[in-house]
Amino acid sequence: MNQIKIFSPATVANVSCGFDCLGFAVNDLGDTMTFRKTSSKEVKIIDIKGANLPYDVDKNVASAVTLKMLEKYPVDFGIEISIEKGYSPGSGLGSSAASAAGAAVAVNELLDKPFTPLELTKFAMYGEKVACGSEIADNVAAAIYGGFILVQQYEPLSIVKIPVPKELMLVAIHPQVKVRTKDARDVLPENIPLTDAVTQWANVGGLISGLYSANYDIIANSLKDIIVEPARKHLIPHFDKVKNAAIEAGALSAGISGSGPTIFALCKGEENAKNVFRAIEESYKDKNIDFTMVYSKINTQGVKILEKK
Amino acid sequence: MNQIKIFSPATVANVSCGFDCLGFAVNDLGDTMTFRKTSSKEVKIIDIKGANLPYDVDKNVASAVTLKMLEKYPVDFGIEISIEKGYSPGSGLGSSAASAAGAAVAVNELLDKPFTPLELTKFAMYGEKVACGSEIADNVAAAIYGGFILVQQYEPLSIVKIPVPKELMLVAIHPQVKVRTKDARDVLPENIPLTDAVTQWANVGGLISGLYSANYDIIANSLKDIIVEPARKHLIPHFDKVKNAAIEAGALSAGISGSGPTIFALCKGEENAKNVFRAIEESYKDKNIDFTMVYSKINTQGVKILEKK
Repeated sequence: MNQIKIFSPATVANVSCGFDCLGFAVNDLGDTMTFRKTSSKEVKIIDIKGANLPYDVDKNVASAVTLKMLEKYPVDFGIEISIEKGYSPGSGLGSSAASAAGAAVAVNELLDKPFTPLELTKFAMYGEKVACGSEIADNVAAAIYGGFILVQQYEPLSIVKIPVPKELMLVAIHPQVKVRTKDARDVLPENIPLTDAVTQWANVGGLISGLYSANYDIIANSLKDIIVEPARKHLIPHFDKVKNAAIEAGALSAGISGSGPTIFALCKGEENAKNVFRAIEESYKDKNIDFTMVYSKINTQGVKILEKK
Repeated sequence: MNQIKIFSPATVANVSCGFDCLGFAVNDLGDTMTFRKTSSKEVKIIDIKGANLPYDVDKNVASAVTLKMLEKYPVDFGIEISIEKGYSPGSGLGSSAASAAGAAVAVNELLDKPFTPLELTKFAMYGEKVACGSEIADNVAAAIYGGFILVQQYEPLSIVKIPVPKELMLVAIHPQVKVRTKDARDVLPENIPLTDAVTQWANVGGLISGLYSANYDIIANSLKDIIVEPARKHLIPHFDKVKNAAIEAGALSAGISGSGPTIFALCKGEENAKNVFRAIEESYKDKNIDFTMVYSKINTQGVKILEKK
């Protein structure tokens, strides 16, 4: 194989109660990337469409991950990378994770698959470090494994893939405002009441149970975040209005995707997702803030190979 | 039916990371209780074996639950109750919950089953209030539903029954020391770092995933409590020694049952449980503290009906 083209999905991390440990992949939103072997022995970004990202190979997430992998697994060829961003960086939908996870999976294919999904996740986490300074796993693991994933622990890294009920669908709105990661971190409480923590972990338990048993009532009941969402929601204009509109239209629940500004809603079935889409759209259209929206199934396979040559 | 004899199981609540929301029922330890219709229209405790418990019908948990149920569902007969405690109150194995859950299930049978398991759990929670002042659900729900249960929320009460991997077994040691509930509550931190809470809820997610998927590695990896166990373990003599002995002998993990003093270990398979039993016994035998031990399968059906007449 000389060339591989992949689709790397957008991802929703945090997922209400599952702050810093849960994530899932989006089926119909993500980046398309092509990786091609060259004789030059260099790693090179040859094209970036759809976003203003660095061509510097140490600063671009995709090439940084590629270099890291070749450091561990030296080869006698180089790799040229073309990137077509399918959605905006800074949305809270794991844009850097899509680049990182896509690179990890694609390069692994070009190398004849020496690495496991867990190892690929670690390489992609390095990409997250290049992008935002810390080696977070929730988005990249969701993009690599697909479906819902739980980052059960970091040392050593343990990723649990959780089944996705068939009818589960996502609706998301990305208001075109900036939420700085630093601001989103700064508003978090350092300490929380033990009683709130218990409420939250009982909901994590409920959400995981609901996903395993495809029980949408338990999923809806457990998709609550009494700790991070109340602290962060004022960073996202009209968050409550969108969330209420989604729930009134029948969404299981809604919350902040990553650290925002995207707001996600989970729904049961396509009809419901369409209604929720319209209700959210309606709730935002007179706000003088541009926005984009998506509705999609959950991606259950992770990074997809589109073409090999 | 005029008379019913039931077995109501001991229960382990908290279960490491699952403080205040997880519990499971023990197959081979519990109370035997007989409930008999009488013409007197009174509720009466006629016999208590194995423990020093009140005969006053408002103070005895079993009769208090019975009275509460008859208040809601009046009948033209009375009920006589005989209680045979199979293990000591104050052990941390849900002794009052066994009485409360046993009464709820047995009386429901005598009344021709007007109540659902969730309603029975609420009646049994009233029994917990009589015994200890607060309407906690984790032990009584485990005794009524059997298996592992998650108290997903209290308002409204939501109980999730979680599958039990077939080979899962319990080993427990009850050192004959007193842990006052007040002391066990007083040592708890009021506030905890958000980062610790995240670690704990990722482990709750891992434990629930491990139970659904019968993945013993994930169960072992997730059975950790970095918040309550460190605060409480000094109330239980030689806790660390027992826990280390259990894990060295191959237990998945070990922790405090309820608020102690019983220490529980979960194991994979009977051989392993026997080894863990011996290792724990060995670790405690020169400590000049009397103790009792048990090893058992997990009870998956809840309160068992032994005889109907």
